[in-house]
Amino acid sequence: MNEKEKTKRPRQTAITNSVIQKRPYKRRTTLENSDAVVTETQTKTRSRQSREVKRTAVKIIPLGGLNEIGKNMTVFECSNDMFILDCGLSFPDADMPGVDIVIPDFAYVERNREKVRGVVITHGHEDHIGGLAYLLKKVNVPVYATRLTIGLIEGKLKEQGLFGKVSLNVVEPRKTVKMGCMAVEFIKVNHSIPDSVGMAIHTPAGVIVHTGDFKVDYTPIDGKIIDLARFGELGSKGVLALMSESTNAERPGYTHSEKTVGESFDKLFQKAEGKRIIIATFSSNIHRVQQIINSAVKYGRKVAIFGRSMVNVMNTAIELGYLNVPENLIIDIEMINNYESEKIVLITTGSQGEPMSALTRMAMNDHNKVNITPMDFIIISATPIPGNEKYVTRVVNELMKSGAEVVYEAMYEVHVSGHACQEELKLMISLTRPKFFIPIHGEYKHLKKHSDLALQMGIPKENIFIAEIGNVIETDGVKMGVVSQVPAGRTLVDGLGVGDVGSIVLRDRKHLAQDGLIIIVIGIERSSNEIVAGPDIISRGFVYVRESEELIISAKNLLLNTLSNCSYAEMREWNTLKGKMRDALSDYIYQKTKRSPMILPIIMET
Amino acid sequence: MNEKEKTKRPRQTAITNSVIQKRPYKRRTTLENSDAVVTETQTKTRSRQSREVKRTAVKIIPLGGLNEIGKNMTVFECSNDMFILDCGLSFPDADMPGVDIVIPDFAYVERNREKVRGVVITHGHEDHIGGLAYLLKKVNVPVYATRLTIGLIEGKLKEQGLFGKVSLNVVEPRKTVKMGCMAVEFIKVNHSIPDSVGMAIHTPAGVIVHTGDFKVDYTPIDGKIIDLARFGELGSKGVLALMSESTNAERPGYTHSEKTVGESFDKLFQKAEGKRIIIATFSSNIHRVQQIINSAVKYGRKVAIFGRSMVNVMNTAIELGYLNVPENLIIDIEMINNYESEKIVLITTGSQGEPMSALTRMAMNDHNKVNITPMDFIIISATPIPGNEKYVTRVVNELMKSGAEVVYEAMYEVHVSGHACQEELKLMISLTRPKFFIPIHGEYKHLKKHSDLALQMGIPKENIFIAEIGNVIETDGVKMGVVSQVPAGRTLVDGLGVGDVGSIVLRDRKHLAQDGLIIIVIGIERSSNEIVAGPDIISRGFVYVRESEELIISAKNLLLNTLSNCSYAEMREWNTLKGKMRDALSDYIYQKTKRSPMILPIIMET
Repeated sequence: MNEKEKTKRPRQTAITNSVIQKRPYKRRTTLENSDAVVTETQTKTRSRQSREVKRTAVKIIPLGGLNEIGKNMTVFECSNDMFILDCGLSFPDADMPGVDIVIPDFAYVERNREKVRGVVITHGHEDHIGGLAYLLKKVNVPVYATRLTIGLIEGKLKEQGLFGKVSLNVVEPRKTVKMGCMAVEFIKVNHSIPDSVGMAIHTPAGVIVHTGDFKVDYTPIDGKIIDLARFGELGSKGVLALMSESTNAERPGYTHSEKTVGESFDKLFQKAEGKRIIIATFSSNIHRVQQIINSAVKYGRKVAIFGRSMVNVMNTAIELGYLNVPENLIIDIEMINNYESEKIVLITTGSQGEPMSALTRMAMNDHNKVNITPMDFIIISATPIPGNEKYVTRVVNELMKSGAEVVYEAMYEVHVSGHACQEELKLMISLTRPKFFIPIHGEYKHLKKHSDLALQMGIPKENIFIAEIGNVIETDGVKMGVVSQVPAGRTLVDGLGVGDVGSIVLRDRKHLAQDGLIIIVIGIERSSNEIVAGPDIISRGFVYVRESEELIISAKNLLLNTLSNCSYAEMREWNTLKGKMRDALSDYIYQKTKRSPMILPIIMET
Repeated sequence: MNEKEKTKRPRQTAITNSVIQKRPYKRRTTLENSDAVVTETQTKTRSRQSREVKRTAVKIIPLGGLNEIGKNMTVFECSNDMFILDCGLSFPDADMPGVDIVIPDFAYVERNREKVRGVVITHGHEDHIGGLAYLLKKVNVPVYATRLTIGLIEGKLKEQGLFGKVSLNVVEPRKTVKMGCMAVEFIKVNHSIPDSVGMAIHTPAGVIVHTGDFKVDYTPIDGKIIDLARFGELGSKGVLALMSESTNAERPGYTHSEKTVGESFDKLFQKAEGKRIIIATFSSNIHRVQQIINSAVKYGRKVAIFGRSMVNVMNTAIELGYLNVPENLIIDIEMINNYESEKIVLITTGSQGEPMSALTRMAMNDHNKVNITPMDFIIISATPIPGNEKYVTRVVNELMKSGAEVVYEAMYEVHVSGHACQEELKLMISLTRPKFFIPIHGEYKHLKKHSDLALQMGIPKENIFIAEIGNVIETDGVKMGVVSQVPAGRTLVDGLGVGDVGSIVLRDRKHLAQDGLIIIVIGIERSSNEIVAGPDIISRGFVYVRESEELIISAKNLLLNTLSNCSYAEMREWNTLKGKMRDALSDYIYQKTKRSPMILPIIMET
């Protein structure tokens, strides 16, 4: 916090302090339930205020996670303070060939780097932490998260050469982190990774609750139920705005408890007697892995771990005490052949059919340690993420062809979602009783459905905001509205390049993929303007040339004709000349093949 | 049929006729319920035979539709006769960029063209007729199908310039077509297109039942229930083998009747009062369209039709009497603005979110006749085919953003499957009581699940065949087995090219899509071996060059260095020279960017 601000903020507080009226809309005034990690200053000085009184405005600026799945990121801004909540990645669509990952556009944050007080992270999934290293390279600020999340972030930073260069801070649930004139309180939620939290953001304008990703699990594996009481307490005192996740907003009812999966595992371990068991799941789903380990112990099997991310996450989880593994249970993958098949369980990555994953390689007979046979009992403990259905199906087909028994998708309840269904979403709205409602984390259809739920529960239509990334949503405690727009979008990461693949490069890649490429090469002697070489034609991805010699020869003749019809002036204007060759060849090729390859004329001056 | 055969077949019949024994395994001997389109010869002369006696062997050769969804095609072969059952297409996967459609490999049929007696088609879906025009161009034989199917095939043949050049023959259900020594009987089934049939193939070795695609609908829109009685009669007399479709083999229970969708439409038309209704569905689902028309009549709305295939199929269906449309109900799309919104229904293509479809263009504000507003009520009456989920979601999101109400997927039961679920599949097995069972139409997991159902119902494991395309499955009435293999696979159609895009072209397209292309051009004076031009670097789809000038300049310097280190001998060996440039640049680029663009060195001799 800089000096300018220190002088500015008390003034705001004084203003907001000066009028005390009736408060049909309540708001909390102190952080009595939260030991602030950083001692509070201004928050204590405020007292009850009416909703009729405007207070220092707070800006909520989503930079990712709205109208899309993934790359979740929100900026909160008040006076001269700013902090970031989550910084995730998303995976490229089919229209982004060659792209590795997609991260948010950080332009607005970079432009305001001196205001940024830190980053808070709700949980350790890629769509919440996957962009963090890229952000920190640009704006190095302290990071606050729960212990496991910090552990997983450490791994990411090591990969990017940032380890030791960033301030990483563990925050316990019910603790608060000060972010200039705002303070962020961590609140325990349930999700498909341990140590997930939602946030209560205490601002001069009021309390904003951000759920992160959540579900309500009354029987979670670690015994730590979502802190519904705290959400209720906040609601009782007054929540200005609720930002709640929408992933499962289309699904009625409740999401089942993670515990039901453990019960299924027990049944399947019985069913698999005499066979080797292989279970694929998300490496980050540590409670799922814990349940596999529990069943392995119960049925006297050793456990071997496959897949780099599975090994990494399990190591972190064991080290930090999030995974309880009896001694000597886990065996090295080199040792699996020393045990009888029916005495081991393999836990592996690849539940999404990812082409390079351990399970996919096993399915394709391409794994050097594991050979699938009819003596394998394979459980895919996950649901395909939209877009991955075909990959998962391919893996299932191949595993089955080897004679293995494969349990997948809806069969036997071997997977439950980590996200709240409609009844849980309603519960969150009921507990927090927000004045304003902003559905987050979802495509438009999810946000719309979630809005409909809020509307049914009595939140007025004008208080519900389906926003877009880049919107600056401002609230002074009385009103809320989109007041402006900041740069927002997607930054494509391809190899080491961050942002150097843009729309032109993608357009060319798609064009090349669609119909391939034809290169025309001619050499022109500059002084005489004579063609001294070519035209030669080289193609890739267009037709199999050996079987299309006739086409290529006619194309060359066509080009020779085109060139011989060019005037002296045209021969000197190479752009014109290239255009003429391109047009002539393009028309000819389309007429002959109904294809439109990229045509690149190259003129070499000698 | 040629002369050689005419003399050959009676001999077989004589042999099969000569031994009459007990028959624990029954087979039908005459076609008493079927008026053969072509008069029968040999079939009547056979009588009851034991399963202990080998008969003239029949070969079943699937060329598509096994271990895949689509391009269904099977060859049946006996002595010197051969016929083809269905000839469909499939749509390209993500690993076939630029490919329009995929059809079966016809090599085996072409090689045996003189044996082919005809093609029978079960129904008019693309995955059953979409390859037919390509086959007929190679092997022009008579086509037999029900009336609507023939109507749809006519449309296809017109597009391919084949109309009038092929013998198209309408066959009614319960009628039989002779195919040399075999005879094919058409049997009415229910499916998501009218006039669908299964087939009973009467062969010297016994009766083979092929279900085509089917479901059991006790209340079909046209009142024509699947001919369960005939399947039962065949089973009672003895079915040698059942080939039954497996699309929904993973789904328990029964598929709902098409009529339930009509009930949903009625409810939704009430709900949509005051709004314009837009319904997207498959153009071929004529019963679905009929129900939309029925609801439109009931609620006093006019109907306008959007999308080329919807217009084409409806015209064919109306012409042939498969669609009952009151006069003056359908209005021209040019006229829709002359009617009040609440008085019209638009029926459109695009239920799969196809990028160029009418509905997608409406959603993207790119349709010149229809502008989506909050006064629109849109029903997507279809389920996304695996792989299309993202496209459909995108369309739903965009329609919703325009404020329209959108009903899709599981909501309100606006779609039912056209395929049999497990209980119906079991019913088919129970009715036909086959000796051998061959699950068809599905990926391996579907075929496996269907096999499991057959096994549970008492068909011995050794009598169940999960086959692959190209397998030659031979049966003599006693035994069945895979005896050999014929060429089978996929032929890619891209524009006018059929089969000219193969694995090398695809590999190049994928490489180009992944990381783009770098072209190195140098000019060498042959006599002096001197570099007279370049090296120049041209890239597409790699990086945005204006922002990467430094990289390109360093790359050029690297190439100059590489060239200057080349010996005189190396400079004369252009392949070596190209290899050296490619390797040097490839290493450098990978080190700098972690990308591997295609590198094309071009040497121009002057």
